[in-house]
Amino acid sequence: MTKRIDFQIDPSRYRHWRLSVEGPVATLSMDVDPAGGLFDGYELKLNSYDLGVDIELHDAVQRLRFEHPEVRAVVLASAKPNVFCAGANIRMLGKASHGHKVNFCKFTNETRMAIEDATAHSGQFYLAAINGTCAGGGYEIAMTAGHIMLIDDRRSAVALPETPLLAVLPGTGGLTRLTDKRKVRRDRADQFCLLEEGIRGQRAVAWRLVDEVVPPSAWQDAVARRAQDFAARSDRPADARGIVLMPLAREVADDTIAYRNVHVALDRAAGRATITVRGPRDLPADLAGIHAAGAAFWPLETARELDDALLHLRLNEPALGLLVLRTEGDPSAVLAADGLLDTHAADWLVREIRLLLKRALKRLDLTSRSLVALIEPGSCFAGTLAELAFSADRAVMHEEAAAIALSPLNFGAYPMSNGLTRLAARFYGEPDSLERARALIGQRLDSATADDHGLITAAFDAIDWEDEIRVMLEERASFSPDALTAMEANLRFVGPETMETRIFGRLTAWQNWVFQRPNAVGANGALQRYGSGQRAAFDPERV
Amino acid sequence: MTKRIDFQIDPSRYRHWRLSVEGPVATLSMDVDPAGGLFDGYELKLNSYDLGVDIELHDAVQRLRFEHPEVRAVVLASAKPNVFCAGANIRMLGKASHGHKVNFCKFTNETRMAIEDATAHSGQFYLAAINGTCAGGGYEIAMTAGHIMLIDDRRSAVALPETPLLAVLPGTGGLTRLTDKRKVRRDRADQFCLLEEGIRGQRAVAWRLVDEVVPPSAWQDAVARRAQDFAARSDRPADARGIVLMPLAREVADDTIAYRNVHVALDRAAGRATITVRGPRDLPADLAGIHAAGAAFWPLETARELDDALLHLRLNEPALGLLVLRTEGDPSAVLAADGLLDTHAADWLVREIRLLLKRALKRLDLTSRSLVALIEPGSCFAGTLAELAFSADRAVMHEEAAAIALSPLNFGAYPMSNGLTRLAARFYGEPDSLERARALIGQRLDSATADDHGLITAAFDAIDWEDEIRVMLEERASFSPDALTAMEANLRFVGPETMETRIFGRLTAWQNWVFQRPNAVGANGALQRYGSGQRAAFDPERV
Repeated sequence: MTKRIDFQIDPSRYRHWRLSVEGPVATLSMDVDPAGGLFDGYELKLNSYDLGVDIELHDAVQRLRFEHPEVRAVVLASAKPNVFCAGANIRMLGKASHGHKVNFCKFTNETRMAIEDATAHSGQFYLAAINGTCAGGGYEIAMTAGHIMLIDDRRSAVALPETPLLAVLPGTGGLTRLTDKRKVRRDRADQFCLLEEGIRGQRAVAWRLVDEVVPPSAWQDAVARRAQDFAARSDRPADARGIVLMPLAREVADDTIAYRNVHVALDRAAGRATITVRGPRDLPADLAGIHAAGAAFWPLETARELDDALLHLRLNEPALGLLVLRTEGDPSAVLAADGLLDTHAADWLVREIRLLLKRALKRLDLTSRSLVALIEPGSCFAGTLAELAFSADRAVMHEEAAAIALSPLNFGAYPMSNGLTRLAARFYGEPDSLERARALIGQRLDSATADDHGLITAAFDAIDWEDEIRVMLEERASFSPDALTAMEANLRFVGPETMETRIFGRLTAWQNWVFQRPNAVGANGALQRYGSGQRAAFDPERV
Repeated sequence: MTKRIDFQIDPSRYRHWRLSVEGPVATLSMDVDPAGGLFDGYELKLNSYDLGVDIELHDAVQRLRFEHPEVRAVVLASAKPNVFCAGANIRMLGKASHGHKVNFCKFTNETRMAIEDATAHSGQFYLAAINGTCAGGGYEIAMTAGHIMLIDDRRSAVALPETPLLAVLPGTGGLTRLTDKRKVRRDRADQFCLLEEGIRGQRAVAWRLVDEVVPPSAWQDAVARRAQDFAARSDRPADARGIVLMPLAREVADDTIAYRNVHVALDRAAGRATITVRGPRDLPADLAGIHAAGAAFWPLETARELDDALLHLRLNEPALGLLVLRTEGDPSAVLAADGLLDTHAADWLVREIRLLLKRALKRLDLTSRSLVALIEPGSCFAGTLAELAFSADRAVMHEEAAAIALSPLNFGAYPMSNGLTRLAARFYGEPDSLERARALIGQRLDSATADDHGLITAAFDAIDWEDEIRVMLEERASFSPDALTAMEANLRFVGPETMETRIFGRLTAWQNWVFQRPNAVGANGALQRYGSGQRAAFDPERV
């Protein structure tokens, strides 16, 4: 699987989803083209999916937020008869490399959480209308919805058959949402997860697997009515006009990717990529200007570009284990942009921009590469862009002419997966330092002040800078990529846990482990033997 | 590594630890015999340890609680010059099977937590006195202490060099305690974990890696004074007499292990073990009687036996993937025992017994085997023993003549690793059910009542019982052991997270993954090449 995977798409090119909007209700129907797999060698039968299907879903969820302010409820449905979704395609999983499987799951997880984020924070309530078989990853998609309806046709069921069928986990949040979101009793969850055929009808309601079952005769009306009910509770504006998420301006060369505000330089010999984010050159004066600028408004454009760059690096450049984070520009201009995002936080579009920045920064936290921020003269690690430094495993600062700055957005706008701001996580052991930092909002902080306040890892003078950086980057490149991944996944998320950290931490780590075990991926393992007519042969030892 | 590992030991046979008690202060000194490894093929140099060293530590920590009520502070020290502890033995890790590595880490983790449990709940405060090199697992032991002292001899340092040296994690709680207990800032934690030589002196204090550094001239006095300080704050009784933890009566045959109250039957053909716990036959009348009975008091004896049986099964019978939990006896007698534990909860010995029961039940939760409880006629799943049913992945009940019962101890005495009682975890989605259950305390509940109140998974009548059980057990034995392990590790621990669940969930899962990766365990991986003079060769791809 070496072809370049592109995460940019638009509805005119969807092969797997249909989006229809009627007033406040959108319907997002899965209609996977069996011949439309991202790679050769498998057919996407029964609405099973691969990464390509999920790239479209991710795009649709994003566009609904920005392009359709009028949409207040989204029905997740299937356009195929008798099947909602059969889950991740098994032949694809069987052929994929370990790294692809892990990154496929990570991206689908992020997309599932974007759906929950829209329901929780954007006033776009998702409901799942399950009108057929709904298994594995299919039920994991349904569980992202705030309300699950199941047709009661004595045939349609929900199921998580991964463990009995494939010897892997329902690893796209399934186990965690079952216990923590749906709050299914643990012995019932155990039964459900080992029942290939799943559960249907009233028992599915009694076990909290779905919220209601509806007879076929009443199905259409019931779904429409529920969608209207949820739409009525939304706080989205009545008569706003959406903005269009124009295609990103992007030039991809062999060793660079150039966007308007983000530049990526690939150094394959050194095993690293340098991501440079440029600060705003011009900004609108007011809210009307923000809406007029639309997708060209610097914070929005930058968030989309950073997001795209990270996804590209994850899937297409796995051997670049280190991301160097840089910025260029005027710190005051970034603070001015933050001022707009702060002043107009109540506006629906500004809210969406802030939420997208939040998600893009979370994607950075969750990228299993070492992150090092270089705070150099001419940089603009201010406010929102200072989050890049706070997300890094280390942030080092040039002692001369470099400055960083904080804005109110560093203190709540961009929580990490664990619900803490990056500064609160940083100062988990010293809450006083958080308050000391708050007092610095708006100031240009030189390296001594930043160091004194614990905002950076270290400062180096001009004489030492190059050597220190070189040694640090070379040394890090010499360590085991796996050990670094696991270490960083632990150190980055201190303190409280949320459903998100449990999915990305505990569940994902277990799934990654299972994805290495011969009982799943060996020649006689369940993933390889699935569909061959041969049963998997298991080593019976527990570890 | 196929020799039978025995977890029973006593101080007369210690080869690796020295325990001395002076009034309220005990000193537990590590003095590992290099030739005393549990297996052949490695030397335990520099106070490095294997499972055998930890079995002695576990025993010492346990005995200090029960046999030494007068001990209020325990100094963890080294009897070797210039080295505190070099961590887990690397050659041992390099030779061990994946299963042994994982279970070794699990047991050492449980022992580390028993130290923290003694500090938090028994009034036995542990402090670490680091008078030499303290690396890897050595520093992980030190971090279990409530106070860490480091000698300031310009040489002694603390370090977590696992990632740079061995391409694995500080997986015995190290990463989690660094961020969550010691609250080290994340970029400092990142630096520290990649620094082979570690950190010493004032910088170790400034980074919160240790609590104080002391010059060599003042070392002995300072350690003694601190120990006295902490001892003075303990609530342990002034003039109590300890009880002796007599050797367990135990008969090990090829397919049975018979203790006085616990019986284990091994069915290797079916891949399962049946653990039967017998209820008390006679009980003391009062607190004096409990002290007189000592280690023969039924709850204490049973906890020790269950603990030993679980450890035996984990390490010596890895192919028995399913534990069937049974009880035999009079439910009223178990409730009477619970009554004693409840009435005399304030007594130091009863407190220890309750805490040991808590730890034994946690060990059951954390045992990576499927757990099925069979509630049959003649069983006594009451109070403390009902926890066995609540810990099981499924608990099924015979409809005739079987009963279960609840006691006050089901509602707080035995929290799981996540801080919830098993009933609170069970009813995470329906807190009302928890209150309904509380109203049933003391009653004999037939299967219909138990089912109605959600206390069991299912009930079967006499006609179906045998078939239902047979099918359930056979079916479960047909699934992938790894997928079951990972699934159970997720489903068993709903809701809140603690440092413990983060260590056993997130950190352990990542460590298990790393323990499967060629960069660590492959022929060219760091664990295999350590000490060979050859550098490890890493696949640079991140996943």
